[in-house]
Amino acid sequence: MPGRHFLFVPGPTNVPDRVLRAMHRAMEDHRSPTFPLILRDILDRLPKVLGMSSGRAFVFAATGTGMWEASLVNTLNSGARVLAPRYGQFAHLFISSATRLGYKVDTLESPWGLPAQPSAIHDALARDKEHSIQAVLVVHNETSTGVTSDLAAVRRAIDDAKHPALLIVDGVSSIGSLAFRMDEWKVDVALAGSQKGFMMPAGLGILGMSQKALARVDAATSPRAFFDLRDMIKQNDTGYTPYTPALSLLFGLQESLNMLFEEGLENVAARHAHLASGVRAAVAAWNLELCCRDASSHSNTVSAIMLPGGEAPKVIRRAYDKYQLSLGAGLGDVAGKLFRIGHLGDLNPLMLMAALGGTEMALRDCGIDIKPGAGLAAAQDVFRRDAVQAQKLAAD
Amino acid sequence: MPGRHFLFVPGPTNVPDRVLRAMHRAMEDHRSPTFPLILRDILDRLPKVLGMSSGRAFVFAATGTGMWEASLVNTLNSGARVLAPRYGQFAHLFISSATRLGYKVDTLESPWGLPAQPSAIHDALARDKEHSIQAVLVVHNETSTGVTSDLAAVRRAIDDAKHPALLIVDGVSSIGSLAFRMDEWKVDVALAGSQKGFMMPAGLGILGMSQKALARVDAATSPRAFFDLRDMIKQNDTGYTPYTPALSLLFGLQESLNMLFEEGLENVAARHAHLASGVRAAVAAWNLELCCRDASSHSNTVSAIMLPGGEAPKVIRRAYDKYQLSLGAGLGDVAGKLFRIGHLGDLNPLMLMAALGGTEMALRDCGIDIKPGAGLAAAQDVFRRDAVQAQKLAAD
Amino acid sequence: MPGRHFLFVPGPTNVPDRVLRAMHRAMEDHRSPTFPLILRDILDRLPKVLGMSSGRAFVFAATGTGMWEASLVNTLNSGARVLAPRYGQFAHLFISSATRLGYKVDTLESPWGLPAQPSAIHDALARDKEHSIQAVLVVHNETSTGVTSDLAAVRRAIDDAKHPALLIVDGVSSIGSLAFRMDEWKVDVALAGSQKGFMMPAGLGILGMSQKALARVDAATSPRAFFDLRDMIKQNDTGYTPYTPALSLLFGLQESLNMLFEEGLENVAARHAHLASGVRAAVAAWNLELCCRDASSHSNTVSAIMLPGGEAPKVIRRAYDKYQLSLGAGLGDVAGKLFRIGHLGDLNPLMLMAALGGTEMALRDCGIDIKPGAGLAAAQDVFRRDAVQAQKLAAD
Amino acid sequence: MPGRHFLFVPGPTNVPDRVLRAMHRAMEDHRSPTFPLILRDILDRLPKVLGMSSGRAFVFAATGTGMWEASLVNTLNSGARVLAPRYGQFAHLFISSATRLGYKVDTLESPWGLPAQPSAIHDALARDKEHSIQAVLVVHNETSTGVTSDLAAVRRAIDDAKHPALLIVDGVSSIGSLAFRMDEWKVDVALAGSQKGFMMPAGLGILGMSQKALARVDAATSPRAFFDLRDMIKQNDTGYTPYTPALSLLFGLQESLNMLFEEGLENVAARHAHLASGVRAAVAAWNLELCCRDASSHSNTVSAIMLPGGEAPKVIRRAYDKYQLSLGAGLGDVAGKLFRIGHLGDLNPLMLMAALGGTEMALRDCGIDIKPGAGLAAAQDVFRRDAVQAQKLAAD
Repeated sequence: MPGRHFLFVPGPTNVPDRVLRAMHRAMEDHRSPTFPLILRDILDRLPKVLGMSSGRAFVFAATGTGMWEASLVNTLNSGARVLAPRYGQFAHLFISSATRLGYKVDTLESPWGLPAQPSAIHDALARDKEHSIQAVLVVHNETSTGVTSDLAAVRRAIDDAKHPALLIVDGVSSIGSLAFRMDEWKVDVALAGSQKGFMMPAGLGILGMSQKALARVDAATSPRAFFDLRDMIKQNDTGYTPYTPALSLLFGLQESLNMLFEEGLENVAARHAHLASGVRAAVAAWNLELCCRDASSHSNTVSAIMLPGGEAPKVIRRAYDKYQLSLGAGLGDVAGKLFRIGHLGDLNPLMLMAALGGTEMALRDCGIDIKPGAGLAAAQDVFRRDAVQAQKLAAD
Repeated sequence: MPGRHFLFVPGPTNVPDRVLRAMHRAMEDHRSPTFPLILRDILDRLPKVLGMSSGRAFVFAATGTGMWEASLVNTLNSGARVLAPRYGQFAHLFISSATRLGYKVDTLESPWGLPAQPSAIHDALARDKEHSIQAVLVVHNETSTGVTSDLAAVRRAIDDAKHPALLIVDGVSSIGSLAFRMDEWKVDVALAGSQKGFMMPAGLGILGMSQKALARVDAATSPRAFFDLRDMIKQNDTGYTPYTPALSLLFGLQESLNMLFEEGLENVAARHAHLASGVRAAVAAWNLELCCRDASSHSNTVSAIMLPGGEAPKVIRRAYDKYQLSLGAGLGDVAGKLFRIGHLGDLNPLMLMAALGGTEMALRDCGIDIKPGAGLAAAQDVFRRDAVQAQKLAAD
Repeated sequence: MPGRHFLFVPGPTNVPDRVLRAMHRAMEDHRSPTFPLILRDILDRLPKVLGMSSGRAFVFAATGTGMWEASLVNTLNSGARVLAPRYGQFAHLFISSATRLGYKVDTLESPWGLPAQPSAIHDALARDKEHSIQAVLVVHNETSTGVTSDLAAVRRAIDDAKHPALLIVDGVSSIGSLAFRMDEWKVDVALAGSQKGFMMPAGLGILGMSQKALARVDAATSPRAFFDLRDMIKQNDTGYTPYTPALSLLFGLQESLNMLFEEGLENVAARHAHLASGVRAAVAAWNLELCCRDASSHSNTVSAIMLPGGEAPKVIRRAYDKYQLSLGAGLGDVAGKLFRIGHLGDLNPLMLMAALGGTEMALRDCGIDIKPGAGLAAAQDVFRRDAVQAQKLAAD
Repeated sequence: MPGRHFLFVPGPTNVPDRVLRAMHRAMEDHRSPTFPLILRDILDRLPKVLGMSSGRAFVFAATGTGMWEASLVNTLNSGARVLAPRYGQFAHLFISSATRLGYKVDTLESPWGLPAQPSAIHDALARDKEHSIQAVLVVHNETSTGVTSDLAAVRRAIDDAKHPALLIVDGVSSIGSLAFRMDEWKVDVALAGSQKGFMMPAGLGILGMSQKALARVDAATSPRAFFDLRDMIKQNDTGYTPYTPALSLLFGLQESLNMLFEEGLENVAARHAHLASGVRAAVAAWNLELCCRDASSHSNTVSAIMLPGGEAPKVIRRAYDKYQLSLGAGLGDVAGKLFRIGHLGDLNPLMLMAALGGTEMALRDCGIDIKPGAGLAAAQDVFRRDAVQAQKLAAD
């Protein structure tokens, strides 16, 4: 079909032409005298994206799913006990990974559409007098429901319980898009993939480790090989990697970091707030509900929109077949009940106007009663403002 | 600025990723045994795009402006007399090229916003009893006003006047987008550039020559070197070119021809009719006027939209600065009075939704009284139909 | 520095322009209706490269190191006993991975420069009356020494010992370059990375599993998450993946498979034999020794060339700094004692002439007594023949 | 065929990956507020490459052949008389272009293999007492014979004759590779194409005009349209172009200028001298003769190598078919008598080792009596030195 496809799933996101060009390069010897220039550039700049002033960042040839594993095997003892709120599909899968790797997970169930509950975390930790829980696993932004958890509150809950557990955070759909404050929130392990806020193809896993987490690496008794940070640390210290790095993706990551810092991380976050406001204005004008039940938890990277009557899969399929628009489907407990618009990465208002226009047409085609143009007019009222202004409004 | 820029000037058009990739290739020796495979593939397929079953096509490392010159110097005697309607900026510049090259141009003036007038052509030719006029120069689709002339009617006018003049047609903003029927309309020379319907960067000029026009090449007394078809014919016959060809652009042209034929030329024309209908529906919903005064002459590749009060340049600038949207400005007689939306090449409805959304916001930002969302709702009503259906409606 | 760099390490190899172009593509939704077309195309064709007519192939977003882990955790019970010859650095690292993951490795030491010893494997298995050894781990082509082991002989050794152990083969630097006959050799697990014979950047791990190995997946008790084939099998059956795939690399792999099959796997192997013969002829003309002690074990993908007196690192550095030529260094037990020329992937004789020319100059610059041009003249004598002829000679 | 093709014709030259990437970009509106940044960057830097401190540079969507025309029609009156030495095929074609455009050319014949003869130019001008000769047309580096003319001597010849004729120089295969000193040599018009020293695909013509030449533009009576500098000057003054520019090629030219200035023009010239010395050393070791008869005229961008007995076309074909090596053929008077190795643009010694290796094998395959490896050994002796050293040797 002619023209560009509009990719509005919440990952992979659009890879900017600059990044595609940066990856279109001949291979190099990863043991050459110049390779460390590439690796160190990346490892020096990644902590800034994570809001981390001490600790270290690491890059693996893997995905976010691999980083779940890496975050656990490098910090936990074999069979360790961990605590994890389950409030969406990706929280569920993180828990599932931990379970398969032999860890005992105390799960805190939340209704999908709500964020992780700091009070429940507090209470569970407070009950753990012997401090047998080694870590709390939290998904920052739950991609399946469009809900962002309050990590500052989670941190307060842990501190209030005076519990030494590590805070391990999945930031796959937040890092690089939303403000992420590893230092401020005392996150011990933050993990991400390349294919969302970093505007890259999937294939790189990113791990941020606090000093406290790093201190666990040698002591942790979990078996590990590919994800073993001991080798990675040793080799990274020399500017190299323990095995062949995914070099084309590293070239791309350098350029995506260039773009993030050229725009400025605060501006990136403000832009995502701005774009999300426009989407939510359109949803409201369509008289549809978000899966996210509370405005304070609205995700600025993905909106999950409820559609009663099992129409969501039809709308998604219509958008794809007729309008060259990829929307996200409902997953897990909300499969069939909603569709998702990803609004993260290399996006601007006009790209979202196209997505909202396509969504509106697909909704109408499927018989949803939408006032023509209403969503687009509402989005316009947001997009005609500027991003910084929008962020201030969102902050009020 | 993050995200994609939206290019909606009437040329250059968006270069599809496939074409960009095709041009990202190492150079080759243009005198190698395999070069003829590339050149012949192009020269065999170009005539189909022109609707030409006999005659020949040629490709120059030049632009449409160069093809004006090539079309004249290869068919006319030095100082020859030609007839040319002037009904927009590009008709004007074609005439200007002819004049500079020493030809005497009988100009037929039309108000901008109307097409070439077949009756005026007929009358001028009928008055030329001694047949001193060697050619009639017509711009098929006037990019400055969004007006398409009726070439079948022009042909009838020439035939009715029983005049032997060549019909030389500028198809720069029509060929590859609108139906072009060189055989049926007995066009003798058709010229185009690479950067519009061919979805390429500028840098190639394309020339189609009927048998009648080819018969003029040796006889024509105009001096010429770079654009001399005598060398081109001689070398093309062997599969080669008289001088170094613009090889990267030829690689791209092969791929753009692949895309045109995969979609099918009729489907390409239907799609352009469909997209244009959506744009015109939006313009009507905004209560704005097209420069084109007559629905039968509406261009399906570009719409020129009048804005009173000198607001057009402000709207164009606002769209560019705030919404990453490039619109076309008024040129020549209509400078400052209108803005143009190009809707040709590698486009689909959602891309136009973005452009119309950005236009609507820029109009509102400049104080134009537009009902929010009205244009987009009107366009949706068109785009929810399918392209073939739209063409039929347009044909009624 | 101007001009192309010459990459002659034994991986990553040169990525052909076609593959680079194939990866220069916009991202797509990996849950779209069309994604299975991409994945199935790859999974259908990979087994042919492995010489496998039953069984299944899998692709992971990881590297060959990850495939070591995947090959073990999906087939072995926790703490299982395995047998592994150690005859070079990559055999050593495979063993190290197994050890870290908690397996007990019976190591069979061979001097570096010799291949895996089938008789030693036979004897060790014959001694294991209770069949407590679950697998034999063999590196097919030892990249550190330029030695290829005889897998047919290894298979005979296992069969002669009437032992049920799985045969797990690291084919990282052989698969896609050398003939690999999974069926014929009854290899149970074959593993590879994308960055050698597949002519891709690193970032994909490839796993081939025989029916016998697949039957172990559910029963194996090793903990696993990222590399868990149970999810992979379940999702691949539907045309999808259990987590976000490394899509840009999959696009590249499709194109690299196109190239391998266009050339023909037999021709690929013949070409590698041809290129390797040229390199070995040059080495002989330089009066230098290969690390590989036995002509029947000469690797056709990499030659490791001994240099006495600690000159190897100087030669490598000189080649890099002065001639834009990357050669491989000695690793592990042979660190500092040799340099390596990788001759695998997208290569032709003239590329090797450049590499040999650069090597010859670097050797001379470092004071090695080489007759100028001798190596190049010897290589010419090979390269002037054709690849098929060379293979026949090699087979004699 | 696998691996890279080796392109050693004297144009088009290898396009560096950086330049290919720079051209892989979305199109932009060439009437946007930001387009002048691109154009001015190019027009500001081109004069430096030409060695021109006053005067102006221009870029056309055309080729070097087009620049022949542009150089003449913008400076000469209709039917003007010009003087031109003919000492090779490109001198011949320049003369042919001038003749076709209606100019009267006084041709000074030189045997092919010798440069333009300053004394002959002096004498012809001295005889032109009435100063009816408006220009002297000289090809700086004759690509067909590998001969570089001495422009300083040509300038002295003109000055000694006290003749006001313009000096119009074809620098197609010299500018960007060899030192070009427009100011010092008082060249009035210098012309080039993009596909040689500028390391680009063909498709851009480059014109440098001295103040004296610029003063002729308005007065010159030659008819012209596409190549008319009057429009170009007027539009360039505003940062724009008179018609659609070949934007993708302009992106490439920016990057090629970046590369030229990063290396430094003097280093570029030294590198070309170095590479050429290596080629000539190999030719001497093969006991073959250059077409160029005098060492002081040896071209540093192309070597034309005589082969008696009509073997040259066979060698060229063999190199192409068997070794993926493109060599240049003999043209015009020397057709069939020689083959050419282009050694200009983005090249380094190892690339030339490959080309010389392939040439040596093709020569041997065709039965030419060559001592195996002799040419390569001779080239090594040059390439083991450094470029600056080589230049000094060449200067002695």
